[in-house]
Amino acid sequence: MCGIFGVYGHKDAASLTYFGLYALQHRGEESAGIVTYGKKRIRQHQSMGLVNDVFDEKALRSLKGDAALGHVRYSTTGSSIAKNIQPFLVRHKKGHIAIAHNGNLTNAAHLRHGMEETGSIFQTTMDSEIIIHLLAKFRGKDYKESLLKALSQLEGAFSVVMLLNGTLIGARDSFGIRPLCLGKLDGAYVLASETCALDLIHAKYIRDIKPGEVVCIDKTGFKSIHLKSKTRPAHCIFEFIYFSRPDSDIYTKNVYLTRKRLGIQLAKESPVKADIVMPIPDSGNYAALGFAEESGLPFEAGMIRNHYVGRTFIQPTQHIRDFNVRIKLNPIKNVLKGKRVIIVEDSIVRGTTSKSRVKTLREAGAKEIHMRVSCPPIISPCYYGIDFPTEKELIASSRSVKQTRDFIGLDSLKYLSLDGMLNSMPLSKDKFCAACFNRNYPIKFSKRFKKSVFEKRR
Amino acid sequence: MCGIFGVYGHKDAASLTYFGLYALQHRGEESAGIVTYGKKRIRQHQSMGLVNDVFDEKALRSLKGDAALGHVRYSTTGSSIAKNIQPFLVRHKKGHIAIAHNGNLTNAAHLRHGMEETGSIFQTTMDSEIIIHLLAKFRGKDYKESLLKALSQLEGAFSVVMLLNGTLIGARDSFGIRPLCLGKLDGAYVLASETCALDLIHAKYIRDIKPGEVVCIDKTGFKSIHLKSKTRPAHCIFEFIYFSRPDSDIYTKNVYLTRKRLGIQLAKESPVKADIVMPIPDSGNYAALGFAEESGLPFEAGMIRNHYVGRTFIQPTQHIRDFNVRIKLNPIKNVLKGKRVIIVEDSIVRGTTSKSRVKTLREAGAKEIHMRVSCPPIISPCYYGIDFPTEKELIASSRSVKQTRDFIGLDSLKYLSLDGMLNSMPLSKDKFCAACFNRNYPIKFSKRFKKSVFEKRR
Amino acid sequence: MCGIFGVYGHKDAASLTYFGLYALQHRGEESAGIVTYGKKRIRQHQSMGLVNDVFDEKALRSLKGDAALGHVRYSTTGSSIAKNIQPFLVRHKKGHIAIAHNGNLTNAAHLRHGMEETGSIFQTTMDSEIIIHLLAKFRGKDYKESLLKALSQLEGAFSVVMLLNGTLIGARDSFGIRPLCLGKLDGAYVLASETCALDLIHAKYIRDIKPGEVVCIDKTGFKSIHLKSKTRPAHCIFEFIYFSRPDSDIYTKNVYLTRKRLGIQLAKESPVKADIVMPIPDSGNYAALGFAEESGLPFEAGMIRNHYVGRTFIQPTQHIRDFNVRIKLNPIKNVLKGKRVIIVEDSIVRGTTSKSRVKTLREAGAKEIHMRVSCPPIISPCYYGIDFPTEKELIASSRSVKQTRDFIGLDSLKYLSLDGMLNSMPLSKDKFCAACFNRNYPIKFSKRFKKSVFEKRR
Amino acid sequence: MCGIFGVYGHKDAASLTYFGLYALQHRGEESAGIVTYGKKRIRQHQSMGLVNDVFDEKALRSLKGDAALGHVRYSTTGSSIAKNIQPFLVRHKKGHIAIAHNGNLTNAAHLRHGMEETGSIFQTTMDSEIIIHLLAKFRGKDYKESLLKALSQLEGAFSVVMLLNGTLIGARDSFGIRPLCLGKLDGAYVLASETCALDLIHAKYIRDIKPGEVVCIDKTGFKSIHLKSKTRPAHCIFEFIYFSRPDSDIYTKNVYLTRKRLGIQLAKESPVKADIVMPIPDSGNYAALGFAEESGLPFEAGMIRNHYVGRTFIQPTQHIRDFNVRIKLNPIKNVLKGKRVIIVEDSIVRGTTSKSRVKTLREAGAKEIHMRVSCPPIISPCYYGIDFPTEKELIASSRSVKQTRDFIGLDSLKYLSLDGMLNSMPLSKDKFCAACFNRNYPIKFSKRFKKSVFEKRR
Repeated sequence: MCGIFGVYGHKDAASLTYFGLYALQHRGEESAGIVTYGKKRIRQHQSMGLVNDVFDEKALRSLKGDAALGHVRYSTTGSSIAKNIQPFLVRHKKGHIAIAHNGNLTNAAHLRHGMEETGSIFQTTMDSEIIIHLLAKFRGKDYKESLLKALSQLEGAFSVVMLLNGTLIGARDSFGIRPLCLGKLDGAYVLASETCALDLIHAKYIRDIKPGEVVCIDKTGFKSIHLKSKTRPAHCIFEFIYFSRPDSDIYTKNVYLTRKRLGIQLAKESPVKADIVMPIPDSGNYAALGFAEESGLPFEAGMIRNHYVGRTFIQPTQHIRDFNVRIKLNPIKNVLKGKRVIIVEDSIVRGTTSKSRVKTLREAGAKEIHMRVSCPPIISPCYYGIDFPTEKELIASSRSVKQTRDFIGLDSLKYLSLDGMLNSMPLSKDKFCAACFNRNYPIKFSKRFKKSVFEKRR
Repeated sequence: MCGIFGVYGHKDAASLTYFGLYALQHRGEESAGIVTYGKKRIRQHQSMGLVNDVFDEKALRSLKGDAALGHVRYSTTGSSIAKNIQPFLVRHKKGHIAIAHNGNLTNAAHLRHGMEETGSIFQTTMDSEIIIHLLAKFRGKDYKESLLKALSQLEGAFSVVMLLNGTLIGARDSFGIRPLCLGKLDGAYVLASETCALDLIHAKYIRDIKPGEVVCIDKTGFKSIHLKSKTRPAHCIFEFIYFSRPDSDIYTKNVYLTRKRLGIQLAKESPVKADIVMPIPDSGNYAALGFAEESGLPFEAGMIRNHYVGRTFIQPTQHIRDFNVRIKLNPIKNVLKGKRVIIVEDSIVRGTTSKSRVKTLREAGAKEIHMRVSCPPIISPCYYGIDFPTEKELIASSRSVKQTRDFIGLDSLKYLSLDGMLNSMPLSKDKFCAACFNRNYPIKFSKRFKKSVFEKRR
Repeated sequence: MCGIFGVYGHKDAASLTYFGLYALQHRGEESAGIVTYGKKRIRQHQSMGLVNDVFDEKALRSLKGDAALGHVRYSTTGSSIAKNIQPFLVRHKKGHIAIAHNGNLTNAAHLRHGMEETGSIFQTTMDSEIIIHLLAKFRGKDYKESLLKALSQLEGAFSVVMLLNGTLIGARDSFGIRPLCLGKLDGAYVLASETCALDLIHAKYIRDIKPGEVVCIDKTGFKSIHLKSKTRPAHCIFEFIYFSRPDSDIYTKNVYLTRKRLGIQLAKESPVKADIVMPIPDSGNYAALGFAEESGLPFEAGMIRNHYVGRTFIQPTQHIRDFNVRIKLNPIKNVLKGKRVIIVEDSIVRGTTSKSRVKTLREAGAKEIHMRVSCPPIISPCYYGIDFPTEKELIASSRSVKQTRDFIGLDSLKYLSLDGMLNSMPLSKDKFCAACFNRNYPIKFSKRFKKSVFEKRR
Repeated sequence: MCGIFGVYGHKDAASLTYFGLYALQHRGEESAGIVTYGKKRIRQHQSMGLVNDVFDEKALRSLKGDAALGHVRYSTTGSSIAKNIQPFLVRHKKGHIAIAHNGNLTNAAHLRHGMEETGSIFQTTMDSEIIIHLLAKFRGKDYKESLLKALSQLEGAFSVVMLLNGTLIGARDSFGIRPLCLGKLDGAYVLASETCALDLIHAKYIRDIKPGEVVCIDKTGFKSIHLKSKTRPAHCIFEFIYFSRPDSDIYTKNVYLTRKRLGIQLAKESPVKADIVMPIPDSGNYAALGFAEESGLPFEAGMIRNHYVGRTFIQPTQHIRDFNVRIKLNPIKNVLKGKRVIIVEDSIVRGTTSKSRVKTLREAGAKEIHMRVSCPPIISPCYYGIDFPTEKELIASSRSVKQTRDFIGLDSLKYLSLDGMLNSMPLSKDKFCAACFNRNYPIKFSKRFKKSVFEKRR
């Protein structure tokens, strides 16, 4: 997963992009970068690390220009190296191309293989570089035509923001799998993965970029063109379940309210006698609020999250039981002791983390533990950009709900039903990709692709 | 404010102290330090920054020994320099003294002045250094006698942990103003500001150090001696209101449950017709839960906190309205639009932050905003270690509730009553210092002290 | 200018390369990098900075493998960015190519333009990338054939070391403009810009790589192939005058002894009555020794070099006269006072540095100052890799010797004659490129090239 | 050893001090610090590292004020820690004291012991802190009287620069063991260890601070007072032999010329048939020039020093013969092959370094190697600030010249005679301390002192 942001026509383009990335930090904690354009010069600053660490005032001041694009990157297995930081920028005889990409191409290996055969050199393992090579290859008189030609070669999920010789471009694949929205601020155009980035800079949300739409923004204004291929919405439903920020609107609808509705539906489907409802903070908070409201049971903060714990921390010298759970989440014994507890989780991936948490809650004195999950079992990987593990590692792909319950050590375990989830969505159910739950992938892909995906994983 | 931690008799003393400080990070974000003792050698590592930044594995490995003490320090005005990092360590002809201190002495200037007159040299502006000078001055044959003599000179609040030639010492002033608790792990003794530090390392909570008690732990075991001065509990009530972690037990009682009770009492005292109850996250969460439960109104997350925002961030180049609120807390318009909102705050200090937040909520569409505060108006400074501003800057010391309401821009504002607060406490009301609310300071102090305090502030 | 180094067949390949670069540091102070190959894996570490700053023990340990190549880079105008650090490495469907390059191609712009036309993407502004693109383009069954094909496209100066799928390759252009020598250590082959790098690791010097020769070293041993184009030696004479280390052998001959002979010849051609001979340390030391020996005048250290002064230092707040001279070189008044001084310089480029130094010597009390330069006037730029300024900035291209003397503020100024220089060389005079002195460039170049050179300069 | 610098009455005090320390860097490479005073505020910046690393423009800008003092520190065994960086600064009820010290007190342990008995606390192991404690102890109405009282307690060598409530003070022990000179620049006064620091900032040398003199510089001007104890010059002769910069004047006389005279005298005393004279660069350069001039033999650079080698470097993975010599000094085989070589060294301490160098020269082909040393054998430690090893480790204290010759592997070895050295000095022979050569220590010291010195060494 990644977060992308772009702005055109604002004298504080770099500063706005910096804050846009700040708001999108949850979409990628590994690296951050900004490219700006102004007075015919392109500038770039990027590094491994969080947005706040990568940029300081001096770096921002150096990023002159009134057009900018930025990217935050999530660490996916094996390629967590400095070279892969985005935006990807190429200077060229006839100018420059910079690109920030969110999503995953399913024909990347195929395209790359073909171009390497004819002597092309690739610097990185990123899909973004492939898009740039295609743009270079198809370059003609009319850059819009070239754009459509190049983007038409791509299969898979892509929401991209580009700077092409000073023109800001935003594009989304024909299925609109990853989000991308458009805003305005002081007359300037803004593109962002989520609306929370617009909110922070006080930009006004205009609309989403449509599936298959390519928008080009330059001195002459805003133009919208479209990929020729057939389009139909297949928005990633997992953005609503877990990935997006609760204060964002995604595919035009609010995330927090959706999550709360999932919790309400979950309480309707799978009630259980208990004393309290508690979330796994923070991702389970919102569905838990809905569950508590619907069930009439008291909502309690049974575990307190330590917000100082970063992504990594030193392991203790000696074994401390369930340390990795407790350093992040400390249970409150006085709340849990002798209680029948319902814990609400947003989703279960491998099940190992849940297992440790449940053990910790039992030690703190919980008498019964009933887990309620605000989505169905995840049974199949995502090939469009969510970093799930391989099918084998997904607990629900190989174990029944009962087996999973026993593995985690629960008194009861219930998932939200597929229909329950789809019906709780704020858009009609045919507008989503829910392939990770139902294996119904909207885009065909070759065997070679699957192979390459699994190889990358190893 | 500060957090202190000590351990005696454990081969992983440094590692345990590191995690103890990790758990106490909320008590001081400015600097961190650890001193260890083993095989007659004393070792030290400290720096400005969060615990996770100050220590790496190499540093921890170098901190050998089976006794250790640690400190996290809060930035108080004007003295935020490297020299003032604790623990404060002195190597001496006859050995060493290391000290970690939480609290504030009210006769520090007086003691220091006297010792400087006779040629003593002070390196820092810290109270801890004064305690060490007293220990050096009163040193006799029996270190316990010296200890009692030195500590008897101190007026004000102190919870301290010391290493004195390999003996771990814990002490608390005669009023027990700041917390300090005792735990055990694998036969080793542990001292900590709050029980959340014991929880993380899986140590068992034994009891609190008593007001006026001095405990000495060495090879020969655990001994408890007592200051001669009269003791009576006057525990800081603000630890319950705001400062301690909700999952901690303070003065033997749980913080989270106390905060929830404050919210329940608040709802009883000051109900109001509204659509939703929301907290200012995270510090207002727990009272808000109590308020919602008691009032029967739905609890909603009306603002989402961005957990990536550190203590400092770059300011935007151009003015963005209410930026400093919104970078930390983003309101969800779909939740707030047209609603009558009750917001629950733990406390109001200057009122300026509340004012900005309320403005942001109004812009997001809230129709009515009613603020409920889970403690009485703060009208007087704390001289025992809480970093409140001067009396003049405390909004409640110069404005009536009505004026404050108007300043913040509220439809209604209600504080919890003094009796309501005291009666919601888990200990009897005469066991607390509530001087910031009622000016009833348990310890007398000279004019010189007040003067020095205010001078430090400037 | 740059320094290159390679080793094949030694278990300490990275460590040896590190020391090789250490010895070649004078050829490039801006950045350093090493690529190693072993067990089918390629590894890379590089950064801006001196060799000692770029590598630490951890970095060296991570550079596993028994083949390695390294590069130190000199900062040339305008392209001093991290992206341009060498060795340049590309991972490819069929393997990898890494290259370290010393020299300057005169048809780089032409080659690049052609490849960009057909859709190639260039990441850097370095000649090395062009070589890699050519290798990718001409790749056939036999990599040796491809190599010769690709290298045949190049015009200009190149001494290169490459790793091509685990084979170490060394090559030199048909004129042998830049040096490259071959050594052996414990059965392993070593390639280096200068012999001082062999000395440091105690490798035995074998021979120079010949003009137009390509050597390939792999498991099967050492093979030598040759470019088809006609070859004739045109070794850069400036390596002897200034660039190489005095303890190196270049083109098989020692640098120190050559410089001393230049000083002897200079004393023969241009004697002058004086009290002392002094060098501008350290580059003028060796010719000054020869001059003093031949003239019978005492050699004195009239200026002492401060070896702590790095490439950059903070400028003083207020104006201090001739500060930038004196921070590096402090004159000794007691030596200079009232003396007639001969100062021996290796060369004069812009003349401005000499002017400041002479002023400083006058202030220190020198009565007469006679400058003797151990090469002829530099009148034309180098297009083969020496970073001279443009012709306009070369003082000798626009001013007569008399005008230069007056500009610098000398009592007399004499250059070594062209014949005097060539006859002092340890190889016959037709084996050198002395184009910077006589405009006799051995390689033709197009107008476009000249244009591109000057554009880069701006 | 250390370098000290002070300036009073100049708006660029910090910047001038920075450059002063730059010039004095050879006196201490471990740490650097500056303290400034202006508008009643004292400021400080210091760190481990070279001057150029410790200070940047921001640090210098922050060091406001028109009085400043600075210090560079040499790493002496065991106490190379951040706490010991100088200047040492204490803020005090009545003001501040900052001190930079060069030299070594012989009654430090005694003084410290006494003050600890009465309850004083010491932060560091530095002599400077003792001086500050004495100043605090003897503080009276008249600071000059206090100064004389405090400094009178000190035994041993001290050249100090102090800032005492805005007054700049310079003082030197009664024997004037370490150098300290006075200069003027734009009306401001400057104090420095060596004149090379005055040269760099273009200050005019006025005179040396006299033995036992204390100078006080403030708004009212320059005053000179004197310690009551008897004074007689006993200047450290080793400053001339090795320690000071050749371009400095020490004790009013030039170092370079003195070293050259030592070489001339050495050639007179101990001629030998040989082909060339070569120095061990850079410290042997100047005596070697004198030796070559007097002997009529050609001076050759037989070894080239690599100026990029810092104080530390990574050791090679595998054994490379004489690596630690060759990384710093590369012999030129063509110069040495078959030659009878005289190498001129400034001094021999342990003999181990010379041994390795001689081995390297033999391998490079030298036929005969004759070493000439420009001072007598060092037989006794320095207790006044030169960091010699213990007597046992000084090769000349336990081995005869013949044994030393064999240990090092020489064909012949000759030291300069004691009289030859003293007579070559530019001041009369009774003005020097030459105790390291003749055990004639000018200051008595107790057994306790010797013991403490040796303990520190372990």
